[in-house]
Amino acid sequence: MIELCPIGVVHVDVEDDDLQRKGSVEGVIEIYDEFKEGLHLLEGFSHLILLTFLNKVDAEARKVLKVRFRRLQQSGVPVELLPEVGVFASDSPHRPNPIGLTIVRVTEIKCKAIYVSGLDVYDGTPVLDIKPYTPFRRIEVIEVPEWFSKIASYVKREP
Amino acid sequence: MIELCPIGVVHVDVEDDDLQRKGSVEGVIEIYDEFKEGLHLLEGFSHLILLTFLNKVDAEARKVLKVRFRRLQQSGVPVELLPEVGVFASDSPHRPNPIGLTIVRVTEIKCKAIYVSGLDVYDGTPVLDIKPYTPFRRIEVIEVPEWFSKIASYVKREP
Repeated sequence: MIELCPIGVVHVDVEDDDLQRKGSVEGVIEIYDEFKEGLHLLEGFSHLILLTFLNKVDAEARKVLKVRFRRLQQSGVPVELLPEVGVFASDSPHRPNPIGLTIVRVTEIKCKAIYVSGLDVYDGTPVLDIKPYTPFRRIEVIEVPEWFSKIASYVKREP
Repeated sequence: MIELCPIGVVHVDVEDDDLQRKGSVEGVIEIYDEFKEGLHLLEGFSHLILLTFLNKVDAEARKVLKVRFRRLQQSGVPVELLPEVGVFASDSPHRPNPIGLTIVRVTEIKCKAIYVSGLDVYDGTPVLDIKPYTPFRRIEVIEVPEWFSKIASYVKREP
């Protein structure tokens, strides 16, 4: 068993249901006092990779290995385009280790509070780690499966 | 305390010291039998985001909050360009939650073995999660601090 500790918490002023509808929102990443020294020289990175622990995913949902992107029907994706995929081929929060990976845009850093946009996690979500998003993280030429391209053409963000 | 379980393990045929020198190598991500259903439809993604638990980082190293990229002197970076930075502004394995994030290129998927290049973790490193690298993960316009740009001009991969 691997043990991790929260280094901070995400604050968003949005109800859980509204977050699902909006997709992404502005908010604050609060880093706990004991870890704030780790933010030294973080200023100047326009984007960060935020790793969170999706603590509302319960034990049953951690057993899920295949998912169907049903909520994408709300975005107008025809149901026949929604295959059942393995969780590791998806961004589903339902997965054995529910670690959220969000690329956020930094608005401002004030002491131990990082103001960001692009958050897709609930208010109170524990923060596991923050890494700078650098040119080394940006792969220029990538390929995705055809089923993914078809879905992606209907949505503006990660299915 | 947050508890996670390994879903697989990384195999690389390289000694630990050689990995540090080479920077990145080819290898295999083995997914354990009980999780292999989660790989369904992963074929076709050229790149994956691999999250690992850097299990050679000991308790003392998990207390580190500021680092200096000393090993970059080997890449010819002048020592005066190596500032002391917070761990969250770096990719250092020394950090409170030593989660490794590696973007790997897929060569082949055979049942529960994912053959990849671009690995930067030691043989035997536990795998926490795999997510597809999609166009949504690629941010077109980013900014980095001046100290980072100066260092990056000397190296080919993440400092």
